[in-house]
Amino acid sequence: MTATLYGLGVGPGDPELMTVKAWRLIAGAKVIAYLCANGGESTALQIANPFLPDSYEAIAIDMPMRLEREPAQAAYDEGAAQIAAALDAGKDVIFLCEGDPFFYGSFMYLFERLHQTHKVVVVPGVTSISAAAAELRQPLVERDEVLKILPATMSEEALKAELQTTQAAAIIKVGRHFGKVKAILAELNMRAKAITHATRPDQSIQTVDEIAEESLPYFTTIIARKNP
Amino acid sequence: MTATLYGLGVGPGDPELMTVKAWRLIAGAKVIAYLCANGGESTALQIANPFLPDSYEAIAIDMPMRLEREPAQAAYDEGAAQIAAALDAGKDVIFLCEGDPFFYGSFMYLFERLHQTHKVVVVPGVTSISAAAAELRQPLVERDEVLKILPATMSEEALKAELQTTQAAAIIKVGRHFGKVKAILAELNMRAKAITHATRPDQSIQTVDEIAEESLPYFTTIIARKNP
Repeated sequence: MTATLYGLGVGPGDPELMTVKAWRLIAGAKVIAYLCANGGESTALQIANPFLPDSYEAIAIDMPMRLEREPAQAAYDEGAAQIAAALDAGKDVIFLCEGDPFFYGSFMYLFERLHQTHKVVVVPGVTSISAAAAELRQPLVERDEVLKILPATMSEEALKAELQTTQAAAIIKVGRHFGKVKAILAELNMRAKAITHATRPDQSIQTVDEIAEESLPYFTTIIARKNP
Repeated sequence: MTATLYGLGVGPGDPELMTVKAWRLIAGAKVIAYLCANGGESTALQIANPFLPDSYEAIAIDMPMRLEREPAQAAYDEGAAQIAAALDAGKDVIFLCEGDPFFYGSFMYLFERLHQTHKVVVVPGVTSISAAAAELRQPLVERDEVLKILPATMSEEALKAELQTTQAAAIIKVGRHFGKVKAILAELNMRAKAITHATRPDQSIQTVDEIAEESLPYFTTIIARKNP
C-alpha cells in the first residue's frame, strides 16, 4: 500500500491558475484519471493540457450526464475500481478535478470510495468563485462580513431568506433558474453581475439587471452584494 | 498609464499552493509590495520567498495591528501613494496578498484606492477554506448544498440562526470566540474540526468537541457539517 491517489484541483479554467503543486504532480505523472461527460471531452484534461507529460496511462471515467443519480454512482464505482487497480499495482494516480476538489468537486465521490483503503492526498485549487470575483473586479467579502454560496436550484422562498441575511453571495449553477434569481435580487436591491465560464476562452460577463433572457448557461455564477 | 498593478493571491501558506501565474509574475517582478504587521515580518512575503527574484524594489506597507480602523486606513493611503508613484514612473507593481485577494484579502483596500486611476489585474488564489478542507480530509459541499462562510465575531443568536439553515459552514477568525462557537455546534449536533494555520509549518488540527480551551489562535478555521 505505497502508491498514492492525488486529487488535484486544476482551478477554474485558465491553465496558469493551477497551483505549482498541481503542475509539478501532473508533469511527473504516470497515470492520469479524469471524468468525460457522455464519452466526450474532459474539461479538467483540457485545463491541464499545457502541463501534461509526453506519455501517460489514462483512466477516462465516462460520466453519463443525466438527472438520475444511479448512472453516475455506477460510473464512480467503476472509476474507483480502475484507480484502485492501478494503486494496488504500485502506481501513483493523479485525478484531475475542475476548480477545488472539495468545493462541489467530482473528486469527493472517488475520495469517499477510496480513502479508507488507499493513501489519498488532496491538493486544493482556485475555485470558480474566486476566479469570478477577480474577473468581475468585484471584491467578495471583507472584515466581519458573511459570504453565502447558494445554488440557484433552491426554492424562491429559501433563496430570498438566505439573501436577506447576508452582505454577499455567490449564486452558482444558475442555468434555467436565472429568471427567479434576477427577480429576487431586484426585490432585495442587491448589486449583481453574472459570469459564465470564468477565465475560460469563452468567458462572458453581464450585469444582472441588463439581461433579458430567462435562462443562462449552467456554469454561470452570480456575485451579489447588498447596496450600501 | 501603461504600468500595471497586480494583486496576487499567494495562497494559504504552502508556497507550492501558489498559482503558476503568481509564480511567473513574482519571478519576473521589479517592484514587490506587501503588508508588514507592526513593522515586523510579512506572512505573504514569507510564502512567496522561494520564488522571489534575486533583486527587487520593495514597498513594505507597515500595518498597525489595532482594533481602531483609522491607523489601518492611513497605512493603506500611504501604501497606495507609494504604489501609484511606482506605476506613474512606468514600473509594474506586484502586491502579495495571503490567500485570495478578494476573499477577506488586504488587497481590496488598495484596489479601491487605485483601480479608477491605474490599470489593475487581480490574480485569484487558493483560499484558507479550500486548504483547510483538504488538510482535514473533509469535503466542504456537494451537489445542491449551501456553504456559509461565517466570522466567529457574529452574535450567538445570529451565528446559531445561520448554522441552523445550512448543510455546511466554514467559521473563520475563531480566536477568543471559540467557546461560544463550540457550544452552538454541540447544541446543533454538527460535526466539526478546527484547523489553525492550514498548510503552514505550524499547522494544527483538532476535533472541536475534544478541545478544552475557551480560546484558539485568530487564524483558526472550523469546518462544520450537519450530522446525517
